[in-house]
Amino acid sequence: MKVSVIGATGYAGAELLRLLYGHPQAEVVHITSESHTGERIDTMYPHLRGLYGLTLESMKDIEAIGRDSDFIFIGLPHGHAMAVGKALEKLPVRIIDLGADYRFADTDVYEAWYHVPHTHKDAPRVYGLAELYRDDIRDAKIIGNAGCFTTASILALAPLAKEHLIDVNTIIVDAKSGVSGAGRKPNQGNHFPELYDNFKAYKVATHRHTPEIEQAVEGLSGEKTVINFTPHLVPMSRGILATCYATLKDGVMPEQVDAAYEKLYGSEHFIRLLGRGGYPETKYVRGSNFCDIAWHIDPRTQRVIALSAIDNLVKGAAGQAVQNFNIACGFDEKLGLDFTPIYP
Amino acid sequence: MKVSVIGATGYAGAELLRLLYGHPQAEVVHITSESHTGERIDTMYPHLRGLYGLTLESMKDIEAIGRDSDFIFIGLPHGHAMAVGKALEKLPVRIIDLGADYRFADTDVYEAWYHVPHTHKDAPRVYGLAELYRDDIRDAKIIGNAGCFTTASILALAPLAKEHLIDVNTIIVDAKSGVSGAGRKPNQGNHFPELYDNFKAYKVATHRHTPEIEQAVEGLSGEKTVINFTPHLVPMSRGILATCYATLKDGVMPEQVDAAYEKLYGSEHFIRLLGRGGYPETKYVRGSNFCDIAWHIDPRTQRVIALSAIDNLVKGAAGQAVQNFNIACGFDEKLGLDFTPIYP
Amino acid sequence: MKVSVIGATGYAGAELLRLLYGHPQAEVVHITSESHTGERIDTMYPHLRGLYGLTLESMKDIEAIGRDSDFIFIGLPHGHAMAVGKALEKLPVRIIDLGADYRFADTDVYEAWYHVPHTHKDAPRVYGLAELYRDDIRDAKIIGNAGCFTTASILALAPLAKEHLIDVNTIIVDAKSGVSGAGRKPNQGNHFPELYDNFKAYKVATHRHTPEIEQAVEGLSGEKTVINFTPHLVPMSRGILATCYATLKDGVMPEQVDAAYEKLYGSEHFIRLLGRGGYPETKYVRGSNFCDIAWHIDPRTQRVIALSAIDNLVKGAAGQAVQNFNIACGFDEKLGLDFTPIYP
Amino acid sequence: MKVSVIGATGYAGAELLRLLYGHPQAEVVHITSESHTGERIDTMYPHLRGLYGLTLESMKDIEAIGRDSDFIFIGLPHGHAMAVGKALEKLPVRIIDLGADYRFADTDVYEAWYHVPHTHKDAPRVYGLAELYRDDIRDAKIIGNAGCFTTASILALAPLAKEHLIDVNTIIVDAKSGVSGAGRKPNQGNHFPELYDNFKAYKVATHRHTPEIEQAVEGLSGEKTVINFTPHLVPMSRGILATCYATLKDGVMPEQVDAAYEKLYGSEHFIRLLGRGGYPETKYVRGSNFCDIAWHIDPRTQRVIALSAIDNLVKGAAGQAVQNFNIACGFDEKLGLDFTPIYP
Repeated sequence: MKVSVIGATGYAGAELLRLLYGHPQAEVVHITSESHTGERIDTMYPHLRGLYGLTLESMKDIEAIGRDSDFIFIGLPHGHAMAVGKALEKLPVRIIDLGADYRFADTDVYEAWYHVPHTHKDAPRVYGLAELYRDDIRDAKIIGNAGCFTTASILALAPLAKEHLIDVNTIIVDAKSGVSGAGRKPNQGNHFPELYDNFKAYKVATHRHTPEIEQAVEGLSGEKTVINFTPHLVPMSRGILATCYATLKDGVMPEQVDAAYEKLYGSEHFIRLLGRGGYPETKYVRGSNFCDIAWHIDPRTQRVIALSAIDNLVKGAAGQAVQNFNIACGFDEKLGLDFTPIYP
Repeated sequence: MKVSVIGATGYAGAELLRLLYGHPQAEVVHITSESHTGERIDTMYPHLRGLYGLTLESMKDIEAIGRDSDFIFIGLPHGHAMAVGKALEKLPVRIIDLGADYRFADTDVYEAWYHVPHTHKDAPRVYGLAELYRDDIRDAKIIGNAGCFTTASILALAPLAKEHLIDVNTIIVDAKSGVSGAGRKPNQGNHFPELYDNFKAYKVATHRHTPEIEQAVEGLSGEKTVINFTPHLVPMSRGILATCYATLKDGVMPEQVDAAYEKLYGSEHFIRLLGRGGYPETKYVRGSNFCDIAWHIDPRTQRVIALSAIDNLVKGAAGQAVQNFNIACGFDEKLGLDFTPIYP
Repeated sequence: MKVSVIGATGYAGAELLRLLYGHPQAEVVHITSESHTGERIDTMYPHLRGLYGLTLESMKDIEAIGRDSDFIFIGLPHGHAMAVGKALEKLPVRIIDLGADYRFADTDVYEAWYHVPHTHKDAPRVYGLAELYRDDIRDAKIIGNAGCFTTASILALAPLAKEHLIDVNTIIVDAKSGVSGAGRKPNQGNHFPELYDNFKAYKVATHRHTPEIEQAVEGLSGEKTVINFTPHLVPMSRGILATCYATLKDGVMPEQVDAAYEKLYGSEHFIRLLGRGGYPETKYVRGSNFCDIAWHIDPRTQRVIALSAIDNLVKGAAGQAVQNFNIACGFDEKLGLDFTPIYP
Repeated sequence: MKVSVIGATGYAGAELLRLLYGHPQAEVVHITSESHTGERIDTMYPHLRGLYGLTLESMKDIEAIGRDSDFIFIGLPHGHAMAVGKALEKLPVRIIDLGADYRFADTDVYEAWYHVPHTHKDAPRVYGLAELYRDDIRDAKIIGNAGCFTTASILALAPLAKEHLIDVNTIIVDAKSGVSGAGRKPNQGNHFPELYDNFKAYKVATHRHTPEIEQAVEGLSGEKTVINFTPHLVPMSRGILATCYATLKDGVMPEQVDAAYEKLYGSEHFIRLLGRGGYPETKYVRGSNFCDIAWHIDPRTQRVIALSAIDNLVKGAAGQAVQNFNIACGFDEKLGLDFTPIYP
């Protein structure tokens, strides 16, 4: 398959190039960047020297790129993918957007949280979280790749919501991310001396991944859901750990919780269940498409505490996109993703 | 005042020596270690070279040390301070224990969580969290210095509990600590290559700081309290951030929350209020005795999210001990602690 | 090919398993550990969950393992591989030792620096640094895989030594390594809180990689060589940067230096030349088998400063072993190693 | 003494405020910043909350500030202090410049390396490295505070140069610095995700601290000196380790080297000699004004390897400035600097 990456110079774009290099069925034909048009990608990202000789193009003639590609991956900031999606509407090319533009069934929710008018409301789109929406992804024209925090959170909560084991309005997700999640653009907050040896929360009660988690939990549970989601920055480059709290419904037994996880994920390759009492660590999934999940039940409070770990740039972005690509192409889901995490 | 440090070679003990060096009214007369008896402290801790020439003694003759000291700081693992406290019962020397042995009013709770019989149940003791129990500390024989996670958690929750603004049984504390909190003894889990660039939770629903927080919240609110407390390890050496969730009682207005913090802490030197919407960072308090606190109110969920940051070895251990020492001696509370954090 | 890993639980052994997982021509049949016999490898190394189900065996019956394997990789501490090599002398199995036992042509040098009698002096062995000794490796019975610091140092110096451009007795190698190079066993020096946010030198003028570098430079230059080698610990898990100084011979022009690098490495896949004035970074090679090299010439001092970066666990250990394995098997040298570094 | 800080918002300026807070004889009266005029310093640097309420002024009316101050500390980028120095020429106020403008006796050297015309060539200035130039500092009008790399390098080399024990033209300084040394302004190179878990050299053979080291070695040895100086970035915030190589003159005995260090530094408070065979670590001096020094002699190469560690923001900048201030005022040199490093 001929694939192109629109907005290839962010961390998610660069990670896509890393993964596509090892994909036996994908050939990268175009990569674009408006601010670095004409530069070689291995000048910007020297880790790709000797492996990629591609030069960054402009996306001005997006239709030509679309005609020349079977799949388009979009790594643009939110608000910019809609124009691309609309421009390619009539072409056979299919789209995987790593941003938020195509993640919401209800575009009012998108507009309320992202403060941008949605200009492609009737787009034929699906939510790109493979383990939960695999069937929808198969034939989708546009796949709105799930976000990084949301992937970790939704995968940890899904069995509990789907099997109606928790009161969904007691959900609190306390999430911690490495700094690559904040993007490649330097600013004071991400300046090395200030973030190193430091830990902080940000966007408490206002982060845009909140409604994305709510949408998924509502879909799975069938109940209106309002949650708290709190992101934090960990002084490391990659990795997300989500600590998810919810109150179990009366009478729910620990074994029912175990069974719910087993039922939903027992045969998934990229979800590794560490079981009740386990402890995922971000380093155990670093560089890989795995999501490690464990859960704890506190009999004192009748709460379940679910833990999940992903690499935010892989299962939280580029790896998920490749997994969706594989599903959409009818390939083995592991193609290009079948390697071990890198440890220590 | 002549002071001695029993168990001086752990991180809390070493931090005490750092702070006592700059204390104009304290002279360190004895330091002890059973495993390093006879060694100079600046051989074990070369950062003290040129500043401390003391040699580590055994605590075998603790009574002699007690007779030679006005104050004893204990930096031993839990279960070992009780014997010291008992041995010094009859002497005028006063004690500040940095461990857990003297933190609980109800020794049954101690025994249930620490799995050690309490052998000094009638000890005349107070809980050593200066901002909340200052009056008790003044004349105490034995001060059970508050723990690191608990200091951050209790200080963040106290105004809410005391003013009856929250349902105390909805409290969830999601806490994150630098690795020095796990002590100086190397093990696989704290081995550099495994913890660096990694993030994980531990002791979910079972950490011993849980009942200590509950005891304080119960005391402040007058209500029986059961909470969730989840500790995590951050790949850094020092610092704790506690993210505390609770549901506001019906009708509680944001201004009432603001007022509660202002009322309790408005004139405290070591508590810096960042206000509603603020963001404490562990680096802003590094090396200092400050506790920075902010709070957020989520109208969607009617929850308050309180954030607090401390240096676990200072306000969470040695600094708090010095602050308690100052109170107990009738000194200015800032003596030996009046310096700025170290940033960046 | 059926391969076994003797001493599979150190970091180099675990990294071998990571790389062999992706190798299309290698099947891991036995893995051993004396201290963890009977444990599953994915219990010790949870990043391998779902990928490896192997159980660790004892190496007591090494001959049976040898008969069942085409290749044996040895990840034991120095002094222990000789016994394995001797035990397998008569079997057709071939050996790649990741330790120092088979690295020295002159076993007196080994004994002088390692303080262990060499018990397999007549072993048919070659030095396993692929780019320089490829032809010897092809048919070797025993390959003494080059060390981590030495790989970075020798590859940076080789063109200069081989083309007689420098006075070899002015060589100074100032090297910096991530902490995984010091192994998996915890100790005070590698305890997270002490090493984090810290930098130090160790084993100045006494590190055992010194004679290994000297042996190679002597071989390439034909001149007796005595050098200074200084290792340092960088607070990170992986990666080596070697800064190599040498005085250029009179009249040597910069273009001659450029040409020497180009001549020796111009067609090597795993050596990426960044040219005169370039700057390798350890993160640009992280997780990969690349060695990035650049050089600078200071006209004021007439010195050349060569810089090289590798991942100590890949090109400095397991990746180099796989590369040697590929050569020894007649495979494409990139088999199992043809992926991009992981960045950021 | 009334002191003002011109350019107070860089890391060195902020560190000065930290140290001056604890100085019993200094009162900070003005702090300036052109880009943040009108902001409170504790808004920019929240670690100073509750300790400093000062508002940043413009330096437009520098003469008024000069008239209102006994001492001016300048934390501006090089090239900007000369104008301040000239403007205050006639006033009694004395100046400590933390930048490079007043460090060179020969302004031609300054102009050659800094590419800026020197506009205050006849300034009555001294080089501000207290241990070596204490007598000059006492009455100086303008003190050109020594640089960070240079302080570590010169202090390590001084005894060797002064006692003529080494061939000064064999000096190589391989230095490693935490990232705060590169300043507070964010850029791609210092963006957290790219520098974390990474190590690199920069400005090989071209760094501006080279001639500063040469000037000092020439002054001490009386010999024309050309050296190699190579800076590297360590993924940590603070700290410098300098590894200094030089060839001993024929017949120099190890004891002579020991004696040279003892003679020059034996009674210095801020220089801690770890002796022959010792290992300074940057964390042992963190936050303090200490310079820890050790040396090794390699009989194989007849080279001495001297190691020194400082905190680049303290002994390498603000602490040195305060030490110089104390000398210039006739105070005890330790005033405001007499505290322990912060460890771990």
